[in-house]
Amino acid sequence: MAMKKKPVTGMKDILPKEMAIRDYCIGLIKETYKTFGFCSVETPCVEHIENLSSKQGGENEKLIFKILKRGEKLDAALAGNAIDSSSLVDGGLRYDLTLPLSRYYSNNANELPNPFKALQMGNVWRADRPQRGRYRQFMQCDIDILGEPTILAEIELILATTTLLGKLDFKNFTIRINDRRILKAMAAYSGFAETDYDNVFITLDKMDKIGLDGVKEELIADGYAEESVIKYLGLFEKVTADIAGVRFIKETLGDVLDADVADGLETIIASVEGAKQAEFKISFDPTLVRGMSYYTGPIFEISMDEFGGSVGGGGRYDEMIGKFTGNATPACGFSIGFERIVMLLLERDFKIPGTGEKTAYLIEKNMPAERMQEILTKAKAERATGKIVNIAIMKKNKKFQKEQMEAEGYTVFEEFYINKLN
Amino acid sequence: MAMKKKPVTGMKDILPKEMAIRDYCIGLIKETYKTFGFCSVETPCVEHIENLSSKQGGENEKLIFKILKRGEKLDAALAGNAIDSSSLVDGGLRYDLTLPLSRYYSNNANELPNPFKALQMGNVWRADRPQRGRYRQFMQCDIDILGEPTILAEIELILATTTLLGKLDFKNFTIRINDRRILKAMAAYSGFAETDYDNVFITLDKMDKIGLDGVKEELIADGYAEESVIKYLGLFEKVTADIAGVRFIKETLGDVLDADVADGLETIIASVEGAKQAEFKISFDPTLVRGMSYYTGPIFEISMDEFGGSVGGGGRYDEMIGKFTGNATPACGFSIGFERIVMLLLERDFKIPGTGEKTAYLIEKNMPAERMQEILTKAKAERATGKIVNIAIMKKNKKFQKEQMEAEGYTVFEEFYINKLN
Repeated sequence: MAMKKKPVTGMKDILPKEMAIRDYCIGLIKETYKTFGFCSVETPCVEHIENLSSKQGGENEKLIFKILKRGEKLDAALAGNAIDSSSLVDGGLRYDLTLPLSRYYSNNANELPNPFKALQMGNVWRADRPQRGRYRQFMQCDIDILGEPTILAEIELILATTTLLGKLDFKNFTIRINDRRILKAMAAYSGFAETDYDNVFITLDKMDKIGLDGVKEELIADGYAEESVIKYLGLFEKVTADIAGVRFIKETLGDVLDADVADGLETIIASVEGAKQAEFKISFDPTLVRGMSYYTGPIFEISMDEFGGSVGGGGRYDEMIGKFTGNATPACGFSIGFERIVMLLLERDFKIPGTGEKTAYLIEKNMPAERMQEILTKAKAERATGKIVNIAIMKKNKKFQKEQMEAEGYTVFEEFYINKLN
Repeated sequence: MAMKKKPVTGMKDILPKEMAIRDYCIGLIKETYKTFGFCSVETPCVEHIENLSSKQGGENEKLIFKILKRGEKLDAALAGNAIDSSSLVDGGLRYDLTLPLSRYYSNNANELPNPFKALQMGNVWRADRPQRGRYRQFMQCDIDILGEPTILAEIELILATTTLLGKLDFKNFTIRINDRRILKAMAAYSGFAETDYDNVFITLDKMDKIGLDGVKEELIADGYAEESVIKYLGLFEKVTADIAGVRFIKETLGDVLDADVADGLETIIASVEGAKQAEFKISFDPTLVRGMSYYTGPIFEISMDEFGGSVGGGGRYDEMIGKFTGNATPACGFSIGFERIVMLLLERDFKIPGTGEKTAYLIEKNMPAERMQEILTKAKAERATGKIVNIAIMKKNKKFQKEQMEAEGYTVFEEFYINKLN
């Protein structure tokens, strides 16, 4: 059978230039998050198909790369003449890191600190329609705090993430924050039925694209009572993107919203604003919805003008781990869009700090063993100091060879001949 | 459907203690190999099923985790009522990093330096029978030099790998080296038919277990001419594990072996011995076979007494890339057994160098926003110096909480109360 040169559809080969930036980011992420007390953990890339199909993953469950059973189990399934494929598979590639982390925590809680601050960096897979800049395999980078019910979790997650972005030279981004309970209370206050919330939020989510009027039109077209729609949009007209806005919501909604929710959000905003390391804004955004149904409390997202979209987000999901253990465990996480960040750094031709001089030794071919040892010993001494020394056989067109190596960043060239000392 | 807590069969959740060692090794590997001029590259974890089944992978091809087709292609395959599974799948998880690298190089050669020194660290998957200490997902760590026909490649690969092992505090290991062409020449010299080589080598490979007499018995039992067997084993009786041994083989085999092969091996051994950084032996081992059929020249393996087996190996495979491109491209690689190395470090309770003091701030619950800012600002200053500061809500049983955090390595505790200054 012919060998295929291209990677599989929707996945990519990563070239050295991009990999250098990825390696740098991975190192910086681990280093930064560790100063906040996060520990690295890893789960297998393959997850039980039952877990992946447990309705925690929303739309992602339609995008699973499924893994065929093996051996006798496969033979039995094939003999059964399955028309649908579900009997043929027993696993799938994980589509995110949150579901596997919940399984991990429920499996290992006895051996983990409480609360547990987890750092995960790993590939996930989604069989999305291939499109420019979106791949079917991509790296996710999540921090999660499990077992911490207070807003300390939200504050630490936001500070850790924004400190990292600052170290990567990102400025003037915005952390938008909301709370699922505020989202629901605003809908309840306006008179929407609880069964309609999800649908109302889908429309609300379009606020930045279609504006207040667009949202109003769409809600009315969907058949909701005009009175409710007007009351609802009245809230958004009056609310401001700051602590005053949170207080306005608290006062206006009154008993419909637990006062602790607004107070907590206020403390999160004030604490992050007061102790932030990087240059960014944190703003209250009551239109922030976030799709995943598992969120139960504060939710947040990073907006960056240069990207024109979200480069990360997260929130509290206090009920997911209970699905495994039967006991609810508070949990909150923040995920950065690793691939988007790498893309932005590549676009702005990011220079990796601390990359020293790169030296090339060009050596004549057929170097005898003794002379070779001299050269290697010299290289050993330079390499031991952390310097990059690349030994290459001298080519006939030495000028061209040097030009090519210069393009790779080599600036120092030394030449070694069999019969000439240097 | 019930959620499953355990990872899928044969794969494991990695706990923080092991992850800390893995992260340290990954950092050190990248840092060390980069001083030798290697560049990180990455290929997708999913590979074309055609490539994975191209007979390059030997026994590993029987262990592929196969990925089901999706959408209409799956429907069509299922409608075809396939009794075997091949029509149902279009991809599989890679079982090693060598085959994907060959595809990568053939796909991207125009954008890569020549020669190209590649560093790959990534998971591979093999559906092996689960057994203690062997997992179905494991990390591989390979360096390869593509486009370099001379023994400079072998020398640099061995020096880079052994320098790394030295930095990880491994000593007194042995690099065993042989050449597939010597292996074949010794068999030819003894009168075995070329078609019998592979079978003869399978027996030879057992030398360390069954000894010279055992190998002799087995070859005779397999029906080979006694004259050949005696001549063959006579060579192994006389050869020594050093440069003198290589010279003995060169002289004895005469025209059956290209003199350059023995001279090259001699230069490799002398150069590595003369310029090595770590404490280890390099020895000529004419019984070294290495299973993969793709090797064409020098082959090598790392033996470590504390492990009682190989913790890495590699060799020259000049013909694999030609399978993709049609043009043979010289290639040589060295892979270290990352999982085995991590296991050995865990067993000897390896202390990660440079891990500073870990500080815990224990803070009273319901800290008001202003006081919270003070605490966070203090943490910010400490974290900015690279120190680990973990902020935790003070528990009722503070003594127990501290004991637990001490077990995680926290040695400094500071307490913060709402109404007390400190």
